Amino acid sequence: MLTAEGCRERKARLWSLLPKDCDWVLIGDLRHVQYFSGFRVNPISFSADQKSLLLLTRDDKSILLADNFTRRCAVAEYFVDREAIIQWYTHKKSVSNRDDSLCEALNEVRNVWSTGSGLIEPEGISEMVAACVAEHAEWQFALDDCDENVMQHGGLSSPTTLGTVIRGLRRTKHSDEIELLKRCMRACEAGHRRAFEVVRPGATELEVYLEVQKAAQSEAGMPCIVYGDFRATNADLPKAGGQPTTRRLQDGDLFILDYSVVIAGYRSDFTNTIAAGTPTADQTRQFEACIESLDVASVWLKHGFPCYGIHEAASNVLQRRGFGPLAHHAGHGLGLEHPERPVLVSDSADILQSGDVITLEPGCYVPGVGGMRFEHNYLITEEGAIQLSQHTLSLVPPAGQ
Amino acid sequence: MLTAEGCRERKARLWSLLPKDCDWVLIGDLRHVQYFSGFRVNPISFSADQKSLLLLTRDDKSILLADNFTRRCAVAEYFVDREAIIQWYTHKKSVSNRDDSLCEALNEVRNVWSTGSGLIEPEGISEMVAACVAEHAEWQFALDDCDENVMQHGGLSSPTTLGTVIRGLRRTKHSDEIELLKRCMRACEAGHRRAFEVVRPGATELEVYLEVQKAAQSEAGMPCIVYGDFRATNADLPKAGGQPTTRRLQDGDLFILDYSVVIAGYRSDFTNTIAAGTPTADQTRQFEACIESLDVASVWLKHGFPCYGIHEAASNVLQRRGFGPLAHHAGHGLGLEHPERPVLVSDSADILQSGDVITLEPGCYVPGVGGMRFEHNYLITEEGAIQLSQHTLSLVPPAGQ
Repeated sequence: MLTAEGCRERKARLWSLLPKDCDWVLIGDLRHVQYFSGFRVNPISFSADQKSLLLLTRDDKSILLADNFTRRCAVAEYFVDREAIIQWYTHKKSVSNRDDSLCEALNEVRNVWSTGSGLIEPEGISEMVAACVAEHAEWQFALDDCDENVMQHGGLSSPTTLGTVIRGLRRTKHSDEIELLKRCMRACEAGHRRAFEVVRPGATELEVYLEVQKAAQSEAGMPCIVYGDFRATNADLPKAGGQPTTRRLQDGDLFILDYSVVIAGYRSDFTNTIAAGTPTADQTRQFEACIESLDVASVWLKHGFPCYGIHEAASNVLQRRGFGPLAHHAGHGLGLEHPERPVLVSDSADILQSGDVITLEPGCYVPGVGGMRFEHNYLITEEGAIQLSQHTLSLVPPAGQ
Repeated sequence: MLTAEGCRERKARLWSLLPKDCDWVLIGDLRHVQYFSGFRVNPISFSADQKSLLLLTRDDKSILLADNFTRRCAVAEYFVDREAIIQWYTHKKSVSNRDDSLCEALNEVRNVWSTGSGLIEPEGISEMVAACVAEHAEWQFALDDCDENVMQHGGLSSPTTLGTVIRGLRRTKHSDEIELLKRCMRACEAGHRRAFEVVRPGATELEVYLEVQKAAQSEAGMPCIVYGDFRATNADLPKAGGQPTTRRLQDGDLFILDYSVVIAGYRSDFTNTIAAGTPTADQTRQFEACIESLDVASVWLKHGFPCYGIHEAASNVLQRRGFGPLAHHAGHGLGLEHPERPVLVSDSADILQSGDVITLEPGCYVPGVGGMRFEHNYLITEEGAIQLSQHTLSLVPPAGQ
């Protein structure tokens, strides 16, 4: 899970990018509240859709604002100096509009933000909350006069909002984030191991999903979200994606398991494809092309390498082997969102950076044969890439399983 | 799932409450976008945390605004007259701040909202979106001069925002919502049936959860969220709630399964408690008190009855049998949120209304013995209540299972 030290480091990076006359920031995107505090509502809880706010001040203090039922549903330990929690529901009285709690909480700590000059996250703060702040304080919507440093980290849009700056920061993963991502990877691997045991003609896509999900959650040691593509392909349907259906696998089908395990907002995302029945010679040739594509492209994963070049490398192998060009991205950044920067596509302007966590996922989809895709996750460093996922890429169960 | 007819009925109810000079409304709370259109991002998808907007006009037209990857993750069929979908990610180019897509989508349909006078949902619309609208249109934040009808339906807060009005509408469930709730109930019942087979000394709370979840999702025919209390209680720990842990059940423990199955945003919420091992005489007496409390309170479930009276009825039984008073709510409204109005508590100002879907959940928690809770869900009508949940309330597996 995220740590106090990691939250402190991320806040320090944020403050280093903000104008000196910015005394406080108010954050509302649930991913960004978590990024700096560790607080996130568990999506597997009765408060799943509820909002919270995080108020940060330049003297390095942080305040969480929420209603009491939202706070109860924190997915993990979190790290703030103070809380403004509204007793929205006490098991005693009727309830009012739950969203009003955020304004009530803001008013409880008004002395903190009503002096000085602040910046709000306009993407994540509701109009109601913004109006509440505007009654008592000066705030900026965007960083019009931000320095080059902000633009470089913050990315592409204009005007540069607080949300854009934070999205820029998010690219470079901190050590607590990497540890959490590794925990997602271990759970995802457990699901892929289980898949080798249950993918067979006659099983439904949903049955396979349920076994994979159970193995992943069991490894995670907690309920968590398992989402992705759990779909069979075949000669007539070479490309399929999305949630599992109740369709039964047929002999000769190729089952694509391209999924994420999400623990406290962070996620793995890696793929294997399993043959229902014995793979044909065509399927085996296709498999070998995908694996070579992955292997060749992974060599170029390194700080400073342009992302379009990774896509080109992956696509070239498929083309040379008669399966190309690659019809979708070669991969993308991964963390609190999916996809996130950088994206490994033909016209990408992104350059790999040390601290990126990315996926690489070549695939090909051949009418008359079927579709397959294989994928690993990597941490980019100055020297190269560290492969984070350790599942077996194979159309058939590996020896010994 | 929600239907076109249901969405039409809900929109008609909304327009009947709004001032005559309101030409359009802009909705951003994900529950309310769904309520009027059926569109909701699947929480078990890669777009789980992404936002969309719904623009409704008085001539009964609706427009969905979203980015292309968010749209792809719709959890069910939806019903709008038009879509403004921004190609945020095309597998070709780098991505920018995804939140900008909503403003871009708004600008695509500017001719619809830049004339006339509108109302935005200040709780669910971001400051960025509100600022985008403010550049080209007049909009109201709240219904200061709304008529009595609005106040009655909209509830308690002041000023009366669009979000408050919609929350008021949500209390009265439409037939498509009730059908969807019933689908959640069937899945929840399947989980409770499975629990009787797997709750035993030696099993961990998490293992039980995983089996319940699998049974519920299997019945639902799709991945869906299963959340709630999955915790063992005993003499030393008479009250426990929240997610399952890896703690192993001991002989004599009471396992409380109080959980919801969420399909497309709607949810069941009902409880059974199962004894790990043979129930003691004390546990059996406690069980009988809870069941009588539930039975007695359920008699009063009827349009027009005050909710505090239901709490009193449930609590009185527990007290008379030496287990009272009831230490928490007797129940609450259920639908797109948990809890929602009405709340069945000692000082509730709520009155039961025809169309409410509610839970009733008496419980008691006795030091030296353990805790238990039992719960059913009901639809309130003019004549009484229709019990929607059909699971078995029992400390031990029912005969024949």
